[in-house]
Amino acid sequence: MSDSLLDSSEALKPLSFTGDSLIVLDQRLLPAEESYLECKNYKEVINAIKDMAVRGAPCIGFAGAWACCLATKESEDPNKLLVLFDSVNEARPTAVNLSKAVDRMKECLKQKGVASLVKEANAIYQEDLKMCKLMSSYGLTVLPNKSEFSIITHCNTGSLATAGEGTALGVIKLLARHKKKVRIYATETRPYLQGARLTAWELQRAEVAVSLMPDSAASFLMKTTKIDAIFVGADRVVKNGDTANKIGTYMLALAAKEHGVPFYVVAPSTSFDLSLETGDEIKIEMRAPDEVTELKGNKIAPSGIDVYNPSFDITPGKLITAFITEKGVIAVEKLASFKF
Amino acid sequence: MSDSLLDSSEALKPLSFTGDSLIVLDQRLLPAEESYLECKNYKEVINAIKDMAVRGAPCIGFAGAWACCLATKESEDPNKLLVLFDSVNEARPTAVNLSKAVDRMKECLKQKGVASLVKEANAIYQEDLKMCKLMSSYGLTVLPNKSEFSIITHCNTGSLATAGEGTALGVIKLLARHKKKVRIYATETRPYLQGARLTAWELQRAEVAVSLMPDSAASFLMKTTKIDAIFVGADRVVKNGDTANKIGTYMLALAAKEHGVPFYVVAPSTSFDLSLETGDEIKIEMRAPDEVTELKGNKIAPSGIDVYNPSFDITPGKLITAFITEKGVIAVEKLASFKF
Repeated sequence: MSDSLLDSSEALKPLSFTGDSLIVLDQRLLPAEESYLECKNYKEVINAIKDMAVRGAPCIGFAGAWACCLATKESEDPNKLLVLFDSVNEARPTAVNLSKAVDRMKECLKQKGVASLVKEANAIYQEDLKMCKLMSSYGLTVLPNKSEFSIITHCNTGSLATAGEGTALGVIKLLARHKKKVRIYATETRPYLQGARLTAWELQRAEVAVSLMPDSAASFLMKTTKIDAIFVGADRVVKNGDTANKIGTYMLALAAKEHGVPFYVVAPSTSFDLSLETGDEIKIEMRAPDEVTELKGNKIAPSGIDVYNPSFDITPGKLITAFITEKGVIAVEKLASFKF
Repeated sequence: MSDSLLDSSEALKPLSFTGDSLIVLDQRLLPAEESYLECKNYKEVINAIKDMAVRGAPCIGFAGAWACCLATKESEDPNKLLVLFDSVNEARPTAVNLSKAVDRMKECLKQKGVASLVKEANAIYQEDLKMCKLMSSYGLTVLPNKSEFSIITHCNTGSLATAGEGTALGVIKLLARHKKKVRIYATETRPYLQGARLTAWELQRAEVAVSLMPDSAASFLMKTTKIDAIFVGADRVVKNGDTANKIGTYMLALAAKEHGVPFYVVAPSTSFDLSLETGDEIKIEMRAPDEVTELKGNKIAPSGIDVYNPSFDITPGKLITAFITEKGVIAVEKLASFKF
């Protein structure tokens, strides 16, 4: 495959590391405003992750790695640094990419010392970029050889969530670049509206035909329109294939099963956690009520109302057609014994 | 059952007919603002229905009947009036309550003349009030005899959608008044947020414990929390049990099936249309893109984006445990031969 198809000049960079600070594209303000935060220390990066200025499992991974680099401003004592690295790891609990990246930084610190940390963090970023390209290419292999596709995606899994073109959205953009006629149905992804704010905007910029829809409309769409496939990302995939991903993924997978629509999870090996047997062991982050009850400062629900706001859900492995990784396409039943 | 339990002094009146105009509680502004529109002619009522100042299938029914009364300001010629009645019927297509109410007004006009129209419209309203009470009582009969319940509901089906305490929400409020410990999980109901704005507010006023959630969180809730039942309303139920209701109902029903949660549709006979064989024959209203892309004047998606915004979906009869009507509880397989 020609490399030019795998790279897009319009790709947005969610993060860039200057050596002295981390420049973060503030994703909370998109698409209305393209604004950047300069995080000058590791704590500011932790806050940017917690507050979702930066989001997306792979992106949180290398943001965490660069936060570890900035932690050396506080101390160069390895023992003290390991404690700071742990606090980076605790910024958000569900995506395993963060703890894997921090573990790698710890290992680098122990083996090679402080001077090697920036190189390691940059390597994590570069590897993610390479994995995006490989996932996109493998993603195309699961699709039938035809010229028109209608595809559903959920949340945002593109340039804003990764170092490259994305996981699920990377596959979709590559398919469109192959001159296929593609119509993407993007869920708006309540409550944080990553689909409406980020995916719709990213696909519009990439000139891919996109229709935005309420999350709850996906099953009726599948009933009334032929959908070829669903591609989503992942925050943590465990041994039996159970997959933590943005809230609403499970509902989509149930509807896909009912309508015989293939359901693919596109994720790099850094999102797989084969140390856990089932999804029941994954910690699901509960987010603040005001993500649901307020929007841009406007109250959209009565004051004082209780809110159930899990940031992620678990899609059972049995509902997933296959995992698309940088190592190839993996069936659920092969996952437990797969050597990453 | 004591009648006092079936009536609540806090019940809100979405509409009141003065004889010369229809006073409409503007539901678009709730819960932030309790504001009323005075519709002085039938066209203003049509617009209030189209613009969703008034909504809810039963409520649209008697709003339409009163619009027919106001149409007599334009002409008292029965032939001209019948044409105006038809335009009332066309305000919104999916809820059958509107066309049934207008048909009744037409029949009244033909049989009894212009002078009887107000009495007929008032009767439609009073009958809805009575049906609400009966549905609430029948609704309790499907629940097991225990003291604590966790229930999911969707959209708004209470005092703002009917002449009484509601359909699905009527059952829920009556259950709470019977001193049961009830926790309601209300979907926010994108894009129009009837759950967040209206149901959460109505339950809060009625002092029923309520948790608001994104529509897409319902299936994960069912996986992690024991849910006793789901109660929803209906806009049109056809012969095989297929049910048009607010977008997202179908997704909820699929998740309920997966988790063995009983799924009840609570609707008066005025929401049943046994002239249609299956849900494929129901016209589903598509609403404007800006319901999804804007919120209180704030843009939440990129400009010019295409939007898929069906106002309703069809839940297959096979996913519905039973219909709770003012005539009793009806199993899907008994529906085709049921005499309303």
